[in-house]
Formats: sequence, structure tokens, C-alpha cells
Amino acid sequence: MEQVDILVSEVGPRDGLQSLAQVMPTQAKCEWISLLAAAGLREIEVGSFVPPSVLPQMADTAEIVAHARTIPGLDVAVLVPNLRGAENAVRAGAHKISIPLSVSETHSLKNVRRNHAQMLEEIAAIASLVAQQPAEQRPHFEVGLSTAFGCTLEGPVSEELVVRLAVAAIEAGCAEVGLSDTTGYANPAQLRRLVKKVWDAVGRDRLNGVHLHNTRGQGLANALAALDMGITTVDASMGGIGGCPFAPGASGNIVTEDLVFLVEAMGMKTGIDFEALMRARDFLAAAMPDVEIYGFTPAAGLPRGFERA
Amino acid sequence: MEQVDILVSEVGPRDGLQSLAQVMPTQAKCEWISLLAAAGLREIEVGSFVPPSVLPQMADTAEIVAHARTIPGLDVAVLVPNLRGAENAVRAGAHKISIPLSVSETHSLKNVRRNHAQMLEEIAAIASLVAQQPAEQRPHFEVGLSTAFGCTLEGPVSEELVVRLAVAAIEAGCAEVGLSDTTGYANPAQLRRLVKKVWDAVGRDRLNGVHLHNTRGQGLANALAALDMGITTVDASMGGIGGCPFAPGASGNIVTEDLVFLVEAMGMKTGIDFEALMRARDFLAAAMPDVEIYGFTPAAGLPRGFERA
Repeated sequence: MEQVDILVSEVGPRDGLQSLAQVMPTQAKCEWISLLAAAGLREIEVGSFVPPSVLPQMADTAEIVAHARTIPGLDVAVLVPNLRGAENAVRAGAHKISIPLSVSETHSLKNVRRNHAQMLEEIAAIASLVAQQPAEQRPHFEVGLSTAFGCTLEGPVSEELVVRLAVAAIEAGCAEVGLSDTTGYANPAQLRRLVKKVWDAVGRDRLNGVHLHNTRGQGLANALAALDMGITTVDASMGGIGGCPFAPGASGNIVTEDLVFLVEAMGMKTGIDFEALMRARDFLAAAMPDVEIYGFTPAAGLPRGFERA
Repeated sequence: MEQVDILVSEVGPRDGLQSLAQVMPTQAKCEWISLLAAAGLREIEVGSFVPPSVLPQMADTAEIVAHARTIPGLDVAVLVPNLRGAENAVRAGAHKISIPLSVSETHSLKNVRRNHAQMLEEIAAIASLVAQQPAEQRPHFEVGLSTAFGCTLEGPVSEELVVRLAVAAIEAGCAEVGLSDTTGYANPAQLRRLVKKVWDAVGRDRLNGVHLHNTRGQGLANALAALDMGITTVDASMGGIGGCPFAPGASGNIVTEDLVFLVEAMGMKTGIDFEALMRARDFLAAAMPDVEIYGFTPAAGLPRGFERA
């Protein structure tokens, strides 16, 4: 498989679908994920292992993981809120497990009903579970520092707290932390500052990815700031669907289609084929006709004479 | 008046309104411009001196300039396509006159029916007209290098041609050149490269501003790249209205509201008050009910606890 410079990690099937009232049927999810992978996406967060009573949209995650695992070369990622979710993820055979550790403790209590100390215990337990798996089946375990750029409930969060939680998460045994702008509060100057502080504290190889929202239209500017710093993984969601159902007003991941254009236009490889990506977008639009699908590049098309780097 | 770090130059009354089928009445234009100025915008492109048969939306530009000139501290800018337009602009008392010099000669011929040599003659004639004005009334004269990042008709344009035309425009007597992404083709790497090349050729003080479109969602990422370089003037249009009627598919300036949030959030001053800006936006939406108004920050609101730098 062609080497890529930037990993665009597609979170639409999880972060996107979980926030929508309409539930995408299992068969449609599988087809959509296959189309995404066929377009060249190498990592897809396909669902989350949460109680169906909380998020019925994610009730079929085990089945979705089983399907996604059949796609050659695809890294199958899932979100879990706790150890029980991680156990299900391991059982299903996910390649990557992420857990949110919200820098805003108020948000953490609302989102997963645990404070920081409780979450760090959970993270340690999951790290232990992961470590017990045979090496060839061991999932990659990442902690996503959510509300790292501010919280709709608490307002600004302390950058020192972000750094302390990053250190604590690594000490608890996760392989990597990520920075999540759950609320769309981030600006490029803040992102650069925070990436540098976390790198200084935990080492550059322990923070490779950012998760950005486009709530205030700043998503791609923040993505550019991250790329300029040397961040190599950027989460995005097809059509910009998604948001956090427990952070009011926090809607809209950055749009995969526009991010791919940004990265490729700047001369870096994503491994993604734009026309095939449009087929996955068309499928999403047809499968979820009531959902607002964002993104400018799909409507405008690639520039005349545009060539991939 | 408070010193600003970044001049957000509002082009909505010109670039925005000229591309709309609905004509905003003169009185409404005057009220809107007053609200924009009251929000802190220091420079507004209020119209263009083109034949009313070509752009009936701009037929009242002389009246609009007369009104805008009564607003204390406001720099009143206009676009002109030729010497005749510049004569009208001087007569009306515009503080700043811009003329587009399209790097794509195909686009230049479509847009203003002149090739590069003819445009450079026109620029020299305008420079001479401007030089004849008494110093205290002399307008600032800028040449906007349109389609500098690519053209919907020609495709990619040569960066060397951009540089050559910048040099030729300065030699013809304009005070300053600007780089315009008329078609929404720009990417941040290209923008940085082009700003540097033009600076190297004409001097840093001869290129201070960029005009960006959000056609492919890259507008604020490109604005960030420009700000990082040290560009101090960024054009934007309230609600992202606008585009070039003669460059098919080239719709949507970058959104003033989202740009102001970007700049202020990064700790730089625009002098613009967000709440007052929302009043101008509300006025626009009410005056032009059929027009699609873009922008994310207005819907999401400023972050909780957000303080201007």
C-alpha cells in the first residue's frame, strides 16, 4: 500500500452517526465503511461500545467491527467510555481503542459519569487488559483529551491541567494521547502552544493526532496549524456530520472531503482518491436524507487542472 | 481610535452585492455600511464604478461613497475596471481605488475585456490621474492580482507570471498590489510561496493584503497562512456573500464574522466588536432575505468565557 504523509482518520461512523436522531441501519453502515475504505481511508472509527440505552445508534458496533475487520489494510478503531466497553472492543477485535478523558471535569461527569481520578483508574484497568492480549492481537490504546481547548459548561480550561492529564494518562499505561477540540473552541495559536506543551511533557511520539470540530468555522485553520507543527493524524468526518450529544452546541467535525483537499493541495499524500470519496459521500447522503451534509469542495469540485502531489 | 494589528477589509457591499440577483436599495446599503463601520470595520469596499448596464447592483456607487465619506475614520474603497471608473471614483472622493489585473489573461478578457498589456496601460493612466490629485485628496491606488492562485477557465497559472505582473503593476505606478484567490483555488503552501516571491520582487511594503474565497472551504486556513507570513490586511465579506460573476463556480468570500473570531482568538486586535457585527449581519439577513448567509461563529456564538485579547 502506498505510503501516506498524513493519516486522515475517519470518525463519521462513530462521532457522526452517534449524534444523529436517525439510526443508520447495520447493512448501510457496513456498505458506507466499505466505500470509505475503498476511497483510501486507512483508519476508521466505526462505532463505540456504550450501552444501547445511552446511544442506540451504536448498538450494532460489534457487528460493524466484524465487518470492518474483513477489509484488507483497514485499521478498525472504536471508542469506549470505560473498562466494560474496552472488554467488548477487545472481544470484537478492534485494532484501536480510544477513551475520552475530558479536561473539563464537569463535562467528564456529564459525558461518562466519572471524575478525573475515576477515569484514570479506568484507563489503568484498560491498559492492563490491553497488555494481557497476545502481541499480534493487542489493540492500540489511545486516550483522547476531550474539551482540551475549552468547555461549553466550564468555559476556558487550564493548559497546565491538559498537560497533567496527558502525563497521568501515559503513566496509567495508554500508548498515546490525542487533543480533542470537542467544543469547537480552539484557535491555531492555542493549538500550537498546547501541542508543544504536551510534547515537552510526554515526548513527541506520544501525541500524534488531533480531533477538531468546525463549530466556529476554524476547523481547517486549526488543522493547518497542527500539520505545520508536524502532527500526522487528523480526525475528520465525512460531510462534517457529528458532534458531542452532551456538549450543547458542539456540532460538526471537520469535513473529511475539505481536509483531504487541503492536505493534497499542499503536496502531502493522504492515499485518498477524491472521486471514490464522493461515492462514499453520495451513499451517506442517500442513506441519511434528513441529515445536513457539510463541505465545500464536493460542491465546487477540484480545481481545473488539479493534480495530486 | 484604537490601534489594530490586522485590518479586516469588508468587501461585502461590493464583491458580495455585485454577484446577487437581488439589488439592495441605496438606503439599505447606506444603513448596512453604517452598521459595519459602527462595529469597528475601518475599511469598506462600498461599490464599484462599472457601467450600470453591466452591474446594475452597483449603479448607485457615487451616492454610496458620498454617504460612506461622512462616517468618521472610515476608509472608503471602491473597485474600478478602467480609467473611466477611476475618474468617477476620484470625482466621488473614494479614499482607495482598486483595479483587478487578472493573471489569467482569458479571465481578464472575459472580466474587463482587456489583455495584460491593455490593463497595464490603464493602470499607468490611473496612476497618473491619481498623482495629479492634491496630496490631501489623493486616493490610495492598489492593483489586485486576481486569479493569482489559478483560474476556472485556464486552470493553473504560472507563479512567475504573478510576479512579473506584480512588478509591472508597481512600475506602472500603483502604490500596492494584492493577491486575490478569485476562484477559491489557493492552498496555504501556495500562498506562502507566492507572498514570498512577490515580496522578493517588489518589496515587502508593496504587498500587504490578500483577498480569499471560501469556495473549497480553505478560506480561513489560507488566511492563517497569510497572517503567519505577516500579511496585515485580509479582505472578507459579511456572511461570506459574493464571488465573481464571470468566474463560474467562484462563489463565497471568506466570512468576516469567522475571520474576526480567528484573529481575535489568536490574540491580535481587529478593533471589531462582535455583538455590533451581529447587528450588521442581522440587518443584511433582513434586507436580503433570499440570499444565503454563511458563517459558523454567529450560530455557535463566542466560546463561553471568551475574552478579546
